[in-house]
Amino acid sequence: METYEIKHEVGIKASPDAVYQALTDVPKLAGWWTSDTRGTSRVGGELQFWFGNFCQKFEVTALEPGQMVRWKAKDGGADEWTGTEVSFALDEGKNQCVVHFSHSGWADDSKMFPHCSTKWAVFMLSLKDLLEKGKGRPAPNDVQIIHR
Amino acid sequence: METYEIKHEVGIKASPDAVYQALTDVPKLAGWWTSDTRGTSRVGGELQFWFGNFCQKFEVTALEPGQMVRWKAKDGGADEWTGTEVSFALDEGKNQCVVHFSHSGWADDSKMFPHCSTKWAVFMLSLKDLLEKGKGRPAPNDVQIIHR
Repeated sequence: METYEIKHEVGIKASPDAVYQALTDVPKLAGWWTSDTRGTSRVGGELQFWFGNFCQKFEVTALEPGQMVRWKAKDGGADEWTGTEVSFALDEGKNQCVVHFSHSGWADDSKMFPHCSTKWAVFMLSLKDLLEKGKGRPAPNDVQIIHR
Repeated sequence: METYEIKHEVGIKASPDAVYQALTDVPKLAGWWTSDTRGTSRVGGELQFWFGNFCQKFEVTALEPGQMVRWKAKDGGADEWTGTEVSFALDEGKNQCVVHFSHSGWADDSKMFPHCSTKWAVFMLSLKDLLEKGKGRPAPNDVQIIHR
């Protein structure tokens, strides 16, 4: 089955270890994606990202300090996300850590996909701001891309 | 041949006609993508987007007022862009015009693709700001996602 993948890339003036921490420590995850983040970053553990009453749960499937973080979406969240995978691969560059973001395994790229693609870019910039300026813009104070 | 596609979506508090103008009038294009934009928006015409000494040229391939704008990348710009297509489909929603952005026909999603994906999100937010706040952030004053 053909699947679709969202990809993004940002360069962050921080060490790979600092970026890795922002992708694994729960209080730091709460500093760039959603303020209400719960759970534990260990392989096999569960992370919960709450947006008001909506919760997206992931199983942590890979952790390589300073190099890679991967999660698999559990059911009970967004239907289209169930079974999809989110990964962050880190590359140490000159003066920066390059974050290669991927959200793969989408069965359809016509419904939530374009919205989520834009929104992930917004959150990658929030991650960058958290590390470079000390403050990200996690939900519910995230940059809005649509009028509800 | 399998190809890859970047998709984004933003909702803009403006009429489809106003959004269409920002995607076709050369001085308005210069207000959200790059300040140095040249050419003519007519089917078969050429648009040139200059970034310093680098120029990306497109042939305008479809224009449906208030609904759709499509361009095809000419050679002489980014190698990976030659022959790819950029399109903006407009949907009138409640209180907003939804812009469905696509950059399709990529042969490879591993090189420039992730960077361009993030960057297009940045420029879609610039387009939104131009129309909602009166001022976008076109290059060279665009949001930077990597340290050069």
